[in-house]
Amino acid sequence: MIDFIKPDEWCIIEEGFNPDRHEQCEALFALGNGKMGGRANFEERYSGKTLQGNYVAGVYYPDKTRVGWWKNGYPEYFAKVLNAADWAGIRVWVDSEEIDLHHVEVSDFKRTLNMHEGVLYRTFKAHLSNNKEIEVSVTRFLSIVDDECGAMEYTVKPLNFSGRIKVESHIDFDVVNNDSNYDEKFWKEVEKDVAPNQVYITAATKKLDFHVCSGMRWQVYVDQEKIAPDATTGERDKYASTMFNVAVTEGETFRFVKFATNVSSENYPKSQLITWARENLSKIRNKGYEKLLQEQKEAWAAKWAESDIIVEGDVKAQQAIRFNIFQLNQTYTGEDERLNIGPKGFTGEKYGGSTYWDTEAYCLPFYLSTADKHVAKQLLVYRYKQLDKAIENAEKLGFTGGAALYPMVTMNGEECHNEWEITFEEIHRNGAIAYAIHKYVSYTGDEKHLAEYGLEVLIGISRFWSQRITFSEKRSKYVMLGVTGPNEYENNIDNNFYTNYISNWCLKYTKEVAQKVAQSDADAYRKICEKTGFDIKETERWDNIVANMHFPYDEELGIYLQQENFLDKEIIPAARLPQEQRPINQHWSWDRILRSCYIKQADTLQGFYFFESDFTDEELAKHFDFYEPITVHESSLSPCVHAVQAAKLGRTEKAYEMYIRTARLDLDDYNSEVHEGLHITSMAGTWMAFVEGFGGMRVRDNQLHFNPTLPEHWKGYAFSIRFRDNVIRLHIDQAGVEMTNLSGEAITVSVRGKHHTLPKEDKVFIKA
Amino acid sequence: MIDFIKPDEWCIIEEGFNPDRHEQCEALFALGNGKMGGRANFEERYSGKTLQGNYVAGVYYPDKTRVGWWKNGYPEYFAKVLNAADWAGIRVWVDSEEIDLHHVEVSDFKRTLNMHEGVLYRTFKAHLSNNKEIEVSVTRFLSIVDDECGAMEYTVKPLNFSGRIKVESHIDFDVVNNDSNYDEKFWKEVEKDVAPNQVYITAATKKLDFHVCSGMRWQVYVDQEKIAPDATTGERDKYASTMFNVAVTEGETFRFVKFATNVSSENYPKSQLITWARENLSKIRNKGYEKLLQEQKEAWAAKWAESDIIVEGDVKAQQAIRFNIFQLNQTYTGEDERLNIGPKGFTGEKYGGSTYWDTEAYCLPFYLSTADKHVAKQLLVYRYKQLDKAIENAEKLGFTGGAALYPMVTMNGEECHNEWEITFEEIHRNGAIAYAIHKYVSYTGDEKHLAEYGLEVLIGISRFWSQRITFSEKRSKYVMLGVTGPNEYENNIDNNFYTNYISNWCLKYTKEVAQKVAQSDADAYRKICEKTGFDIKETERWDNIVANMHFPYDEELGIYLQQENFLDKEIIPAARLPQEQRPINQHWSWDRILRSCYIKQADTLQGFYFFESDFTDEELAKHFDFYEPITVHESSLSPCVHAVQAAKLGRTEKAYEMYIRTARLDLDDYNSEVHEGLHITSMAGTWMAFVEGFGGMRVRDNQLHFNPTLPEHWKGYAFSIRFRDNVIRLHIDQAGVEMTNLSGEAITVSVRGKHHTLPKEDKVFIKA
Repeated sequence: MIDFIKPDEWCIIEEGFNPDRHEQCEALFALGNGKMGGRANFEERYSGKTLQGNYVAGVYYPDKTRVGWWKNGYPEYFAKVLNAADWAGIRVWVDSEEIDLHHVEVSDFKRTLNMHEGVLYRTFKAHLSNNKEIEVSVTRFLSIVDDECGAMEYTVKPLNFSGRIKVESHIDFDVVNNDSNYDEKFWKEVEKDVAPNQVYITAATKKLDFHVCSGMRWQVYVDQEKIAPDATTGERDKYASTMFNVAVTEGETFRFVKFATNVSSENYPKSQLITWARENLSKIRNKGYEKLLQEQKEAWAAKWAESDIIVEGDVKAQQAIRFNIFQLNQTYTGEDERLNIGPKGFTGEKYGGSTYWDTEAYCLPFYLSTADKHVAKQLLVYRYKQLDKAIENAEKLGFTGGAALYPMVTMNGEECHNEWEITFEEIHRNGAIAYAIHKYVSYTGDEKHLAEYGLEVLIGISRFWSQRITFSEKRSKYVMLGVTGPNEYENNIDNNFYTNYISNWCLKYTKEVAQKVAQSDADAYRKICEKTGFDIKETERWDNIVANMHFPYDEELGIYLQQENFLDKEIIPAARLPQEQRPINQHWSWDRILRSCYIKQADTLQGFYFFESDFTDEELAKHFDFYEPITVHESSLSPCVHAVQAAKLGRTEKAYEMYIRTARLDLDDYNSEVHEGLHITSMAGTWMAFVEGFGGMRVRDNQLHFNPTLPEHWKGYAFSIRFRDNVIRLHIDQAGVEMTNLSGEAITVSVRGKHHTLPKEDKVFIKA
Repeated sequence: MIDFIKPDEWCIIEEGFNPDRHEQCEALFALGNGKMGGRANFEERYSGKTLQGNYVAGVYYPDKTRVGWWKNGYPEYFAKVLNAADWAGIRVWVDSEEIDLHHVEVSDFKRTLNMHEGVLYRTFKAHLSNNKEIEVSVTRFLSIVDDECGAMEYTVKPLNFSGRIKVESHIDFDVVNNDSNYDEKFWKEVEKDVAPNQVYITAATKKLDFHVCSGMRWQVYVDQEKIAPDATTGERDKYASTMFNVAVTEGETFRFVKFATNVSSENYPKSQLITWARENLSKIRNKGYEKLLQEQKEAWAAKWAESDIIVEGDVKAQQAIRFNIFQLNQTYTGEDERLNIGPKGFTGEKYGGSTYWDTEAYCLPFYLSTADKHVAKQLLVYRYKQLDKAIENAEKLGFTGGAALYPMVTMNGEECHNEWEITFEEIHRNGAIAYAIHKYVSYTGDEKHLAEYGLEVLIGISRFWSQRITFSEKRSKYVMLGVTGPNEYENNIDNNFYTNYISNWCLKYTKEVAQKVAQSDADAYRKICEKTGFDIKETERWDNIVANMHFPYDEELGIYLQQENFLDKEIIPAARLPQEQRPINQHWSWDRILRSCYIKQADTLQGFYFFESDFTDEELAKHFDFYEPITVHESSLSPCVHAVQAAKLGRTEKAYEMYIRTARLDLDDYNSEVHEGLHITSMAGTWMAFVEGFGGMRVRDNQLHFNPTLPEHWKGYAFSIRFRDNVIRLHIDQAGVEMTNLSGEAITVSVRGKHHTLPKEDKVFIKA
């Protein structure tokens, strides 16, 4: 746990410089705009501990993973999000002493991420070894208006001297991934264009041949006056810079503005990258720094108008929910169907920037409810376009006949995890991908999606389950052996309740969708059958499986077991674990963790979350009371599900505890790992915990339902929901629930089981 | 399966050159002398597919294994047997055309490994592109008399021309491990001493700083006349050579002799390596090639006199058993307690040359019965000296109080496997190490070993089991969760019968040994208790575990289950697997293998093998009949155990099938992997299958027992056994059993349950 972030409704603030938490702050203050992003590395040279990271969406590296005894069916590579050019970097000398916060005496240090503006600020004073003092102020942002561009402003004010300030401004592609084996570098230089006032480098990845051009231009002012110092250039492999120096008088302000751009071969012909980079830079330079900044603030204000959540009477909770929403909007915009949401977004290298089941299981609700349905649909189309690869992937594992197994970790549809002992058998991801189709259609009402995309994916997935499930003669039941459930703290287990349950649901749902499409669009159905070779007779085995599936259940406790042998474990509540042994994944051996009863994240309860209408509240309570006390929530994706369920059970205090844990997971660094990057995908879980938990929002039978509860800690809260053609805003406080129909025709909404009609652009108040 | 090795009683012979099987032959014809060894690479340059490999005992490389998500308790490195200098290499030009069997036209090619002599021969004719024809004959051996030395003789006879022959002879340390990631090289040059007639290079490993000096000298003859051509030298990093050329007339024989040596810092001060290398070379050069060769033949003849097994009427079986014995004697001599037996010996890099449980479970009986007891004892002392590291290893995994977990794979006592998904939880190795103590003591009668070495090891091991076994409230029984048994085709299973059984045996045996030592040597016992903190009260929990252990058992089938959920699997006999899918580990995905019922090697039956007196023959038959048909024997260690058990059950045909499979595993390449190296440790299993299987040898109550059966395929067979102070030779044929007491006083031996006294240096014949 850390506790240095100042509470503030709109800003993330650190005061005072502490090198030990710099890597944490590099993640917490990270910037992104959907197309690129990076950690909050200092602009000027910093020789202390740092994890430099700049990332360009869609550009990755298929790193070799053939280590140890590689086995059939293992991936050929592990995809790495690629550390790209450092575009913000400069070096600054004051009368030949370089500013480096690792060496100079720092005071009045403050950094602020203004989430309302989408701008990162930093100020500090430095006392140099030559006794000169300066005041530095830095502003930086990645434009969401010109989304291939970033800009920064660096001002230096000599406080007790007059002298010369020298600046070197660079583009540096000579970077190394933090997770690179043998410090291998993944870029090679293709082209450079270096002039005193602008620099362009195009580099290509050693594998897959992605090309990225990064360029920069600069301007210098003393006080408000623009000056044009003579600059020299410097070059080495994958690196180019310009350098100048300027005389500054005590009390004047030296101001350096840097514009930068990244353009990639994902969006332009390789031969034209420098041209486009030049075009971008010329465009934003003509706009000017102030206008670019102004546009940034306005664009973020507009985003907030749609997606803000307000918490009254709890600044830390307010700050936290905005931090979560802000990061989600920095990471994914839905504009490019080839992109998806990496668990760390643009804030670190862990998980390789790849797509996990997080997208379908946790992120989808946020984008469904806060953006145009097109955004959520992009996430589904992403998987549809990778269906062929999922079928290939299943074939590699020995499945046949169009069975599809989506990868656990992917960039382009191929499996590329590198954690055999866990991910290999986490086949439940297939279920989440099917569930997302169901979720999308029931939320948006876009039934056409089924014929156009959904059914094909569902057929592939159900064929997989049908082959993966086998018959136990001994039990006279179907079983599913050798899986890892969402709880990654058990591997290669038999009859994981969650996986068994969702697989059976897939079989039923696919049949239902097939029949629906056959009726509603016979032509499309025929084409799908032709393309996939699907025959409704296949579902006979599916029915048989569903009718005879084995679910481990303990009669005495009246609960479904997470897996066949779960009760052979020593069941000891997590509360009895010594604090110094937590998180256990940092203190216990893997062997000990696997044998323990401790659950990393909702597993059986994940099933209860997805399929809540299949279980009574009494059943939910029984399972919650058995599993939650042995759950260590060491996955960022765990507390959110528990928050929703605790709220459903009316356990508002528990829901609040779980909510704060997910909401402030990174700000307070619960799992001591924020230096590696933020938990972007779990931030959508935070949103879910808020809206589905406290707001009690559900969609059933084409209608919105709310069942709001107000945590004691709060005076009130408010959030908005897009639902089909409407935007509804709810405000909840002790007085009651106020619902406003912000846009769209009249709509009927249920609150605590009672229907209310919300007239067009009007509101309704329901007394507590 | 391959079938090109010519049957021969004493030789391994390949006729005709086939580049596709060259890598297989490089393993099959490999040479070793306990201190060094290498694959049968061609001496002259070969640009076709080859796996160059020369290895020096005890010299390894701790390669980084921190890949993917490294977890607590995982090893820091994977040890690699280090590819060392190529000492036999030369390059040969005939009138400027280089001899390279990948390019010239080859005829009359033949290679022969003469096992009786310990010498490798090769002859061939080559038709060069300039139409010149030559006849080449090569002889090579690694001396077992001067065990740091090797020698080779290379003769070239021009058949249809007179011309010049040029030779470059080198020492090449610039080698790369086949399993090197990123083709990293592990040696750096330390020192060179290069003269026209001799070359020395000392190189050091980049990690651990092992130093090895390899040196060579040469001699040249035309016909029988020694000549002294002018030679030049050549050098580059880690490589040095001398070169000369000689005029040869049609029909004359050009003869090149190369002496080489490897000396390592394991045995000499680093600063003196070149001096010792020079000393070695000078010594063998003074002996001369002919004498060195003669000594080699005599020394091998003496080894054979002790350890030969004779099969009458089955050349292939005869060849096979000798091949197994020969390789075992090439690999391990017991002269150095720091050394052990790598699964591939000196014949390849797989398994990293490290020590596995193979040593205790399979190799020990061979060395116990064919060598002085000192040799087997060295293997036990090896583990004793690593007890501290085993305790550290257990601590890393969370165990305390002197619990010891021996590594699955090790060089120096540290765990260094790199196959998490299998080896991590194969804790049964701890059992085999305890079992070896029992085996050694009961075979040799060396009870003192218990106080001196055994008890300490046993206490550490039993403490581990006592902590690793947990109590299941649900069952009111002790259980062992999350293990991998000997059958590596199931991972992370619960209640593996074998592991549960051997753990319980350890607990009982340790208590028994503690009581025995306390009685027989109170002083030693007190010291052990002081050193280890052992208190006999610890055994109360052990007794409790033993009394209440859970063993999965199916009442209906009347068999112990390999693991808790085994009967949930689809049980389909291996005979029904399509031939093109075998071995399944080369054709099936790992996921499919894990879920299947197929067993890689004896698992439950391994328990029945170790503890045969605990089970009736009827029980054994039942378990054999259940498990053997679903066993795919894809571990080289599988058929031997089955052979012994089939013989015990009187199923001689099955025993023979299993025996041939282990005996000719490499010669016929059953598992399509001999190119990677030979299965050295399983060769001891072959011996075991022969002597314990057909010979029916057992040691019970300090006495030798035999229960011989004669496979139909054989006329008769004979083998010798060292037992304590005696050497007994048995000859079995249809007439009966002839037992000869070759050395030692009179001894009583049981044959088929009947005691016979064998007078000193006399024989007894027991009619069939």
